[in-house]
Amino acid sequence: MSTIRVAVNGYGVIGKRVADALRHQEDMQLVGVADIAADWRVWPATEKSIPVFATSPDRLAAMREMGLAPAGLLDDLLDQVDVVVDCTPKHVAAENVKIYRSRGVRFLIQGGEKHAVTGHSFVAESSYAGAVGRDATRVVSCNTTSIVRTLTALKTAGLLRRARGTLLRRATDPWESERGGVMNTIVPEPVIPSHQGPDAQSVDPDLDVVTMAVKVPTTIAHLHYWSVQLTRPAAKQEVLDAFRASSRIALINLADGLTATNVVKEFMGDLGRPRDSLYEVAVWEDMLTVQGDELFYAYMVDNQAIVIPDNIDAIRALTGVRDANESITRTDTALGIGTGLR
Amino acid sequence: MSTIRVAVNGYGVIGKRVADALRHQEDMQLVGVADIAADWRVWPATEKSIPVFATSPDRLAAMREMGLAPAGLLDDLLDQVDVVVDCTPKHVAAENVKIYRSRGVRFLIQGGEKHAVTGHSFVAESSYAGAVGRDATRVVSCNTTSIVRTLTALKTAGLLRRARGTLLRRATDPWESERGGVMNTIVPEPVIPSHQGPDAQSVDPDLDVVTMAVKVPTTIAHLHYWSVQLTRPAAKQEVLDAFRASSRIALINLADGLTATNVVKEFMGDLGRPRDSLYEVAVWEDMLTVQGDELFYAYMVDNQAIVIPDNIDAIRALTGVRDANESITRTDTALGIGTGLR
Repeated sequence: MSTIRVAVNGYGVIGKRVADALRHQEDMQLVGVADIAADWRVWPATEKSIPVFATSPDRLAAMREMGLAPAGLLDDLLDQVDVVVDCTPKHVAAENVKIYRSRGVRFLIQGGEKHAVTGHSFVAESSYAGAVGRDATRVVSCNTTSIVRTLTALKTAGLLRRARGTLLRRATDPWESERGGVMNTIVPEPVIPSHQGPDAQSVDPDLDVVTMAVKVPTTIAHLHYWSVQLTRPAAKQEVLDAFRASSRIALINLADGLTATNVVKEFMGDLGRPRDSLYEVAVWEDMLTVQGDELFYAYMVDNQAIVIPDNIDAIRALTGVRDANESITRTDTALGIGTGLR
Repeated sequence: MSTIRVAVNGYGVIGKRVADALRHQEDMQLVGVADIAADWRVWPATEKSIPVFATSPDRLAAMREMGLAPAGLLDDLLDQVDVVVDCTPKHVAAENVKIYRSRGVRFLIQGGEKHAVTGHSFVAESSYAGAVGRDATRVVSCNTTSIVRTLTALKTAGLLRRARGTLLRRATDPWESERGGVMNTIVPEPVIPSHQGPDAQSVDPDLDVVTMAVKVPTTIAHLHYWSVQLTRPAAKQEVLDAFRASSRIALINLADGLTATNVVKEFMGDLGRPRDSLYEVAVWEDMLTVQGDELFYAYMVDNQAIVIPDNIDAIRALTGVRDANESITRTDTALGIGTGLR
């Protein structure tokens, strides 16, 4: 099997994590990353000997001025790769897509962009097959990824009728929380239903899902609460088995001391995961309750980490690797997904 | 009509607000308040010329040492009243009840105590009639009060089949937030369903309600999200009319700039309400959505203020005022409920 050559455009929250994850895949080579920044944000790439490219000649000059040794322009990088993972900010990617298309480079975009930009939305456990051999796909957002993973697990077990969720969203990411924002208040998202339900349907149109979202003053993670109507009365054990069948759903317990989002995050750090990443959807097993044909549960979403494995799988799908399970297993092994959890 | 003589035992979060509310009722007289504290917490009562009683001889001595002029012991206070409103901390009231019973004084306790202590749980718009002439009742907690008010409105309109809610709870009250606690994290309550559902059923056993609760790092207010199964497909207007029929549900709009809990609280202050109190359940009208026979909405609960009008109404019920609407209207007028909202 030949090595898949990959570029990452945008070395931010997602891009830097995708870049690191790529370096752990045996079948992939990170050829380089591109960014507009010349400040602290790109310095670690240089430290890791990742070739850094500039998005434009003036950014190239800025990098040189900073004493960095940029490897060239984004254009040069695109010449050398099979796939580019676009991790640029919302709406920037939609412009970049024109360049990728004109250059004939396959590409992934992230969930901030609209489904229509690629015509395909990706969560490995649901829509991998549809991405095989395509020119492009869109890895959906953190919240949507968690929704599709969990509801797909219930659907696969024949248990899902419809799901109604309340999404507590972290107000901002830790690295930019000094910029001010939500303090000591709770801020409802203006529209009910929120966009994540329809977004999940862009991956799997069969899902009957409605979401409501609200911003809370924390930087660590999102937390979702779900009321699910099952197809029939079920035992709690059946639901747990359905979730366990997915490697990207982790069952955790309050009884083990994992009592809040900050504690789970600390645990990930103690397991030695890079940037304390929780790649899995962490469902609290002991909280989960079934009443007749109704299911209630809550889980944590590490918004910075959860989509990383799906980005890796999407690269394989675009380059023609047909077997979703093969890709998922390779990615999981390389990233240590599931390791250290009971 | 003779004046109802009332004592408040426990001059804390609820007690001090009940005391102030009592002073605005034409048919009631606040004979005095009792507390264990001799510090800043009771000084304002003295400033307002409210007689302060000590709960025990040593607390009486402590008050005198502080230069206060206590009016006597709780025992003396109980001699002079028809009703005592117990606002002491959780589980303390259960002990006090023995004293009230032995003295033959009617009493209210708060939602921190169990239903069994009085055998009757109170929300004015649902269970007023059942409290008329009783020796005692229990005014349920802030969250439960909001649930019973809103679901009663839907039930009265013939729209309620069942309700599933996620409760975002404020982590601590502002006045004690220096004591540490929840910072930059989200903390699920250990048990699903949470206790508020069954507690609502202690007021109205017919309610089909399930709740899940989670603590978020804010001191201002709770915020609830609801998915309600209606008895039939309905128009949004029908639901709004059902809520409007209750004076203690306020419809607010994001479009008016009321975008978060902190803003609504500021608005209450600007309206001149004492301690910025939001006595109503504040339901966001423009967010509220109906899809077929499903209803979705969110509202804010001012946990320090919402139960105050119900405490006042409960006093009237215990002393034999038969007409719930008469009491509700008197209370609303005295407290300015509904005033200043559109």
